[in-house]
Amino acid sequence: MSEFRPVRGMRDLLPKEAQMLRSVEEKARTVAELYGYKEIVTPVVESYDLLSAKAGEEVKSRMFLFKDLGGRDVALRPEFTASVARLVATTLRNEPKPLRLFCVGSVYRYDEPQRGRYREFWQSNYELMGSNRPEADAEILVLTNCLLQQTGLTKYAFKVGHIGVLKGLLSQEKVDGKVQNAVMQLMDKKQYNDAIALLEESGTPQQCISIIRRLVELKGANTLEIVDSIENLVDGYEQSVEAARNLGEILALVSRSGCKIDITVEAGFARGLEYYTGMIFETYAPDLDIALGGGGRYNRLIQLFGGEPAPAVGVAHGIDRIMLGLQMQKTQEESNERKAVTVVPIKDELVSEAFRIAQSLRQAGISAELEVMGRKIVKALEVADKKNAAFVVIVGEKELKENSTIVRDLAKREQQIVSIEKIGEYLKNHS
Amino acid sequence: MSEFRPVRGMRDLLPKEAQMLRSVEEKARTVAELYGYKEIVTPVVESYDLLSAKAGEEVKSRMFLFKDLGGRDVALRPEFTASVARLVATTLRNEPKPLRLFCVGSVYRYDEPQRGRYREFWQSNYELMGSNRPEADAEILVLTNCLLQQTGLTKYAFKVGHIGVLKGLLSQEKVDGKVQNAVMQLMDKKQYNDAIALLEESGTPQQCISIIRRLVELKGANTLEIVDSIENLVDGYEQSVEAARNLGEILALVSRSGCKIDITVEAGFARGLEYYTGMIFETYAPDLDIALGGGGRYNRLIQLFGGEPAPAVGVAHGIDRIMLGLQMQKTQEESNERKAVTVVPIKDELVSEAFRIAQSLRQAGISAELEVMGRKIVKALEVADKKNAAFVVIVGEKELKENSTIVRDLAKREQQIVSIEKIGEYLKNHS
Repeated sequence: MSEFRPVRGMRDLLPKEAQMLRSVEEKARTVAELYGYKEIVTPVVESYDLLSAKAGEEVKSRMFLFKDLGGRDVALRPEFTASVARLVATTLRNEPKPLRLFCVGSVYRYDEPQRGRYREFWQSNYELMGSNRPEADAEILVLTNCLLQQTGLTKYAFKVGHIGVLKGLLSQEKVDGKVQNAVMQLMDKKQYNDAIALLEESGTPQQCISIIRRLVELKGANTLEIVDSIENLVDGYEQSVEAARNLGEILALVSRSGCKIDITVEAGFARGLEYYTGMIFETYAPDLDIALGGGGRYNRLIQLFGGEPAPAVGVAHGIDRIMLGLQMQKTQEESNERKAVTVVPIKDELVSEAFRIAQSLRQAGISAELEVMGRKIVKALEVADKKNAAFVVIVGEKELKENSTIVRDLAKREQQIVSIEKIGEYLKNHS
Repeated sequence: MSEFRPVRGMRDLLPKEAQMLRSVEEKARTVAELYGYKEIVTPVVESYDLLSAKAGEEVKSRMFLFKDLGGRDVALRPEFTASVARLVATTLRNEPKPLRLFCVGSVYRYDEPQRGRYREFWQSNYELMGSNRPEADAEILVLTNCLLQQTGLTKYAFKVGHIGVLKGLLSQEKVDGKVQNAVMQLMDKKQYNDAIALLEESGTPQQCISIIRRLVELKGANTLEIVDSIENLVDGYEQSVEAARNLGEILALVSRSGCKIDITVEAGFARGLEYYTGMIFETYAPDLDIALGGGGRYNRLIQLFGGEPAPAVGVAHGIDRIMLGLQMQKTQEESNERKAVTVVPIKDELVSEAFRIAQSLRQAGISAELEVMGRKIVKALEVADKKNAAFVVIVGEKELKENSTIVRDLAKREQQIVSIEKIGEYLKNHS
């Protein structure tokens, strides 16, 4: 057997999986169309400077980084946002706002391979740039819900928070920026005790720490009540109060939209990435402990890439994980439906006729495979049956003289003589 | 302005181009379905060993080659065939033949950037593996024709030859293998005089050289006659005669299939790649001097990758070049059609209603953008008009009390009060 393998962490998608990938991608485009997002295609290879501008140390250390033949430091994109921000800061800088942009494709991270985690994986990514209003945040939430619904997932839930609540507390208490980021990252990993220990160490007042302890406990599906409790709890921290109100406005829009979304608000929820500035969220399927998607508001990003300041909110969906969720929820029945049509000449002299008939079927929009192995008819029927073909069109001399062929229905195990010009019609009526 | 740029040789596709790319990809899938080809998705990153196994020196020297963090020598795929052959030699080795496989995606070559040539580009790639019969070769030709037709290209032509004609001559004259390859490469670049000089230098008999001189002149659209002339010309060179007959069978199948394809046979046509063993072809659009696609038969490839010997024939289409051809032939009219619907609340208090109405339109399958900039209605109408929207749904207090909105037709510059539940119907009837 061949010594060749995919590179560690990479994998092939065989036809069934490839079909599922393309189907999710297509759904992502349908949703983009419904919400007015335009697709852009950015390169897989970007400059390392660009990709590292917004990435945290962890992401940076896991990039596929190399020099191209011109000696440039380049890397395979670990996500789409940097590329989109580059475009918005340059080519698209004069386009009227808002910009609703959408990408779908593969991204690359040198992670330890495990179930549902590969070094090449697929994302769909939506960015709404230019608006700082709660309806923009709410749109990204209902859009994500719409996408998951369209893919056929039946069970999934949202976890929503607001980075401004915590940031407001820490900023008003003048906690050092580096400590703030470290605290966020610990909270992201749910290492709350470590986060609090770090805050105590850095001299954060006990009153503030006590609020944070209680924030971490504040979560629930009664979203608007939880938001009220947050607002009360952070009373006196102006930026935090504002953040809670902003979150309340976003969730009110979602709840009045008519979309039924399973949302839990978590006051202590923090997404590790330093660039979030407002609402943050992730979405999960039960029994799948990695997020199906996540995103939030990042108002300073376009600036970071040298563009005019533009508030923005976005989301990335893990297409592989959605596929995993679909497989687990088995919402897509394994289709054993017989579909294909195979055209078989009963002898070599009739290959040319068989070729022509197969071609005429395709011209009528019917998927037709020609038998190209020179198999005898009995063997050809056997193979077609094994491959789950629906019909075999048998091209024989006698029938050809009457401009006809034998059409065999493999499921029913019966056959009939059908005139060539009516094969298409016959197949459509019998399948 | 931002200092960030795409890496040299890479580029972004903006919405119009991205849409064209996706449309060609979709056509490639439609054609795959019609001809019974199954899609597989292979990694962009493959081992250098795999990618260099079949590549000539020129392709090898232009790969994006690097070490991953585990110290493995990897590269970005410069084409699909090596990956497909790997799969066929391993995971798919026990699948019944023939295997009809299809890939579509980006490939990478460090070429000098020029019009229509980038370092990241897209291909659709079809391989028919397991059959050595002329109907397999003919299928790849009519399939390629079908794809080009489906994309909307109106003008393109095929150039077809057979590597066996030339190889048969050189082998029978016992020309050294390396010289044979060098001659093929010169002939591929149409440097016929250099090729002949090289043959003379290596002591090839004058009779054979004289045949080659005449072969190079033999070309024409009267394909079957040209093939006959080739057969006569190479009389006495058994393998060459066989090659000419094989080419004749392939072309007879195509011509009797009912497909009208513009084919020129060129007896002296050689595609540089060393692995071709039979029929070879390229397809061109007028005024575009790079091929839209090309392929041929390569019967020893699967073996090279450690699999059971399997004859194979395949084709790769340059999607970027097809896009360039489409732009030049302007077959796709620039669509200035107004399509989008924008939903605008006349004041902030109505945002939530506008959000809900936009959502209900999307649920009815209508693409709806919400105004998320907090613009006043006059400005919002102006922007929607500039963006070529078809309708604006204006959400006002007075109309809302009667469960209605104002629907403004931007092209006709007229508006009407429509009840909320009938907006979808109204828009469908008026667009």
